[in-house]
Amino acid sequence: MDQVPHCETLLLEKQGPTLFITINRPDVRNAMSLEMVAELSAVFTQIENDLHIRAVVIRGAGGHFCAGGDIKDMAGARGQKAAEGEADPFYRLNRAFGQMIQQVNESSKVVIAITEGAVMGGGFGLACVSDVAIAGPSAKFGMPETSLGVIPAQIAPFVVERIGLTQARRLALLGLRIDANQACSLGIVHQAASSEDELEEMLTSALDRVRHCAPVATAETKALLHRVGHEPMSGLLDSAAEKFAEAIRGSEGTEGTMAFMQKRPPAWAGESE
Amino acid sequence: MDQVPHCETLLLEKQGPTLFITINRPDVRNAMSLEMVAELSAVFTQIENDLHIRAVVIRGAGGHFCAGGDIKDMAGARGQKAAEGEADPFYRLNRAFGQMIQQVNESSKVVIAITEGAVMGGGFGLACVSDVAIAGPSAKFGMPETSLGVIPAQIAPFVVERIGLTQARRLALLGLRIDANQACSLGIVHQAASSEDELEEMLTSALDRVRHCAPVATAETKALLHRVGHEPMSGLLDSAAEKFAEAIRGSEGTEGTMAFMQKRPPAWAGESE
Amino acid sequence: MDQVPHCETLLLEKQGPTLFITINRPDVRNAMSLEMVAELSAVFTQIENDLHIRAVVIRGAGGHFCAGGDIKDMAGARGQKAAEGEADPFYRLNRAFGQMIQQVNESSKVVIAITEGAVMGGGFGLACVSDVAIAGPSAKFGMPETSLGVIPAQIAPFVVERIGLTQARRLALLGLRIDANQACSLGIVHQAASSEDELEEMLTSALDRVRHCAPVATAETKALLHRVGHEPMSGLLDSAAEKFAEAIRGSEGTEGTMAFMQKRPPAWAGESE
Repeated sequence: MDQVPHCETLLLEKQGPTLFITINRPDVRNAMSLEMVAELSAVFTQIENDLHIRAVVIRGAGGHFCAGGDIKDMAGARGQKAAEGEADPFYRLNRAFGQMIQQVNESSKVVIAITEGAVMGGGFGLACVSDVAIAGPSAKFGMPETSLGVIPAQIAPFVVERIGLTQARRLALLGLRIDANQACSLGIVHQAASSEDELEEMLTSALDRVRHCAPVATAETKALLHRVGHEPMSGLLDSAAEKFAEAIRGSEGTEGTMAFMQKRPPAWAGESE
Repeated sequence: MDQVPHCETLLLEKQGPTLFITINRPDVRNAMSLEMVAELSAVFTQIENDLHIRAVVIRGAGGHFCAGGDIKDMAGARGQKAAEGEADPFYRLNRAFGQMIQQVNESSKVVIAITEGAVMGGGFGLACVSDVAIAGPSAKFGMPETSLGVIPAQIAPFVVERIGLTQARRLALLGLRIDANQACSLGIVHQAASSEDELEEMLTSALDRVRHCAPVATAETKALLHRVGHEPMSGLLDSAAEKFAEAIRGSEGTEGTMAFMQKRPPAWAGESE
Repeated sequence: MDQVPHCETLLLEKQGPTLFITINRPDVRNAMSLEMVAELSAVFTQIENDLHIRAVVIRGAGGHFCAGGDIKDMAGARGQKAAEGEADPFYRLNRAFGQMIQQVNESSKVVIAITEGAVMGGGFGLACVSDVAIAGPSAKFGMPETSLGVIPAQIAPFVVERIGLTQARRLALLGLRIDANQACSLGIVHQAASSEDELEEMLTSALDRVRHCAPVATAETKALLHRVGHEPMSGLLDSAAEKFAEAIRGSEGTEGTMAFMQKRPPAWAGESE
C-alpha cells in the first residue's frame, strides 16, 4: 500500500505501520451504507498481505462511531424485487455487512476500534470484531433492531462471541442501550476512557505495544486464537507447535532471540518504516 | 392461554403480556419436586406458541427462589427398583429436571428470574437459563451436590454455559455458596438489587423494555443467539440474513419502520392487550 | 502414593489429602525446562488414580511462579537438527509442554495454583489450567512471545479457554503484562490477595472446602464440566443423569445422604487421613 486508495465513505491515512480509517458520513452519524461496506471490505483485502501495515485504527468522524444500517439503503431495498434466481435485496444487503464483519474479525492486522457517540446496530457489530476496543466518554452501545420489528441478524452472533450468551441475550432481547463503563465491564470494549485525552493516550499506548511485537508472529498468533473452540484441542496444539518451530527458526525468531540476548530492541520495534 | 391452568406447586397470574409464575412450596423453601418439574414443563409447552405472552417471570413464594431437589422424591426413588427394561428411578428423576431446564432455556419467551433467598442446586440451574436474572439482597447461590456425595449432573453444564468453565470449575468443585453481588460479578445474574424496592423497579424496567420490542422478532433473535457456537458462523449468518429479509418484509418490520418514520411508538408497545 | 518421588526440579510434600508441588529452580525464576515438564507430567500420572490425594497445590520457590520457557533448552534445540523421520527438536520441546498442560487441565484432582511474581509464558499457561487460582500481590502475568518473534503456541489456546477470545486477543496481540487485580477481573485467577497472610488464608479456605466435598463425586463433576461445549447438550445430560444415579446409589451418595439426615459431617470431611 504505497498510496492509500480514494474512498467515498472513508478517510484513510497511513502513519508508519498504522492505517487510520475514519468512517466519514457525519451527517448521518456514519450510518453503514452498502458503499461503506464495500469500501471497508476492499481496504481490508488490499492490506491483508501488506507487511508494512501492522495495525488498523477504525473510528468515526464527527463524534460518532457508527449509528447502524443506513435507512436509505433499506428504503431502496424495499422498492426492489429480487430478479429471477437472485436473492432478496434485503438478504444481500444484510449478508454483505456480515461478510465484511467476518473479514475484519479475521484480518491479519491488529484492529483497534475507537468507539465514541453512537455505536449501534452495525456499528456495534463492527466494534465487536476488533482486537482492542477503547471507548470514549460519550459512547452508547446497543442493538435496537427488535424495537424496529427486525432482528440483529449479522450482529448478534458476533456479540455472543464477544461477551458470551448470558449477557448477549439480555442486551439483545431487551434492546438495551448501555454506556461506556457498562460496555467495558461486559467486555464489549477493553478500556473506557474518561476523557478525550485519556482516549488518545490509550490508543498511543496500544500502538506502541503493536510496534514491539513481531508482525508475522502477531498475525500467526491471531490466526491461532481464532481456531480455538472450532477444532479439537490436541490437533490444534500439534499444529501450533509446528508453527512455533517455524517461527523460532525463521527471521523474526532469530532476530528476537538475538535482540533479547544483546539487550537491545528487535529490528521491528524501530521508528523507521 | 385465555385461562391460566391450575397447578399444585405453582401460582400463575397473567398481567397483560406477562405470565408470572410463583413457585409455591414455601414450607420446603420451594424445593423442586417431580410434580413441579412436570408443571413447569407443561406451562412452558402451553405458552410456547401463544403470541399474547411475551415475558415469563419466575420467582419463589416465601422469600426463597428454590432450594434444590426435593428430599422426599429422592427418598422415594431410593426405595424403588427399576422395572425390567426401565431406567433407574434416580435417572428419570434427574433427567426430567434437565429436560425442563433445556425447555426453559430455549423458550421463545423472555424469561426473567427473580432470585431471592436460597437459589441452590436445581434452583441455581433454573436461574442459569433465564434471559434476565435479577437478585434480591437475600439471595444465596450454590451447588452443594458434591458435599452430599452426588454430582450437579443436570445443573453444572448450564452453569458452564452461563459463566464459562473457569468460574464454574471453582464453584462446583469447592461446593461454594456465594451472595448476590458475587453472583452478579460472575454473570449468574445480570443485576443485584440492594433492596426489595429496587428489585421491583428493575423488574418493571425489564418488562417495559420487553413491551417495546416486537414479539416475533424477539423470539427469532433468541433462537438465533442459541445457535451461535453450535454451527459454523458462515452458514449461521446466511440463515440469519434470510430471517432478516423475512422480518423486514413481514408485518412487524413494516409496522416498525413506519412507526419509526412517523415518530410514534409501534403497535406492539401499546398498553392494551 | 505412600512415598513422594524424588524430583530434580520440584519439591513434593504430602499433607493429608493434599500434594504440595513447589517448582524449585529459583535461580532462573522457575523457568520451565524439559525436565520440569517431564517431572510434572510424571507426578500427575502417578496420582491420577490415588484416592488419598484430593488436591494439588502448585507454587514456585523464591517468590516467582514460573517465568516461562527455559532459554538453555531453547538454545539446545537450536543446535540440534531433526534426525531422519523425527520431529524438529523445537516442535518436540513445545508440544511436550502443551501435553503436560492438557494433563493438568484434566487431572481428576482439584488443582490450585498459587501465583506470585513472574507468571509468564509457560507459567501463565500452567496457571490457566488450574481449578482455583489465587494471586499474591507481586504477581505479574503475560505472554511476551510475540515480542521475541515467536508465538504463544501451547499457551494462547488455554488462555482463550480461560478468559474467552475477546480478552485473550488483546493480551496476546499486544504482549501485555498485567498485575494481580487485572488478572482477577479478567478471570485468569479467581482471587487476588492483598498480602501474604491473606494468600495463605485463601488457600487454607479452599483446601477446607475440598475436604468437605466427596472425592469421587468431585472427580466426576470435574470430568463432566470438561465435556460441556464439546458434545451436544442432550446426550451430555443423558450421560450425566446415569452418573448421578450411580453416585447416589454408591458409597459416597449413601454416606452423604445419611450424614445429612443425621446432621453430622460425612466421613470424607474428617481430619484423619
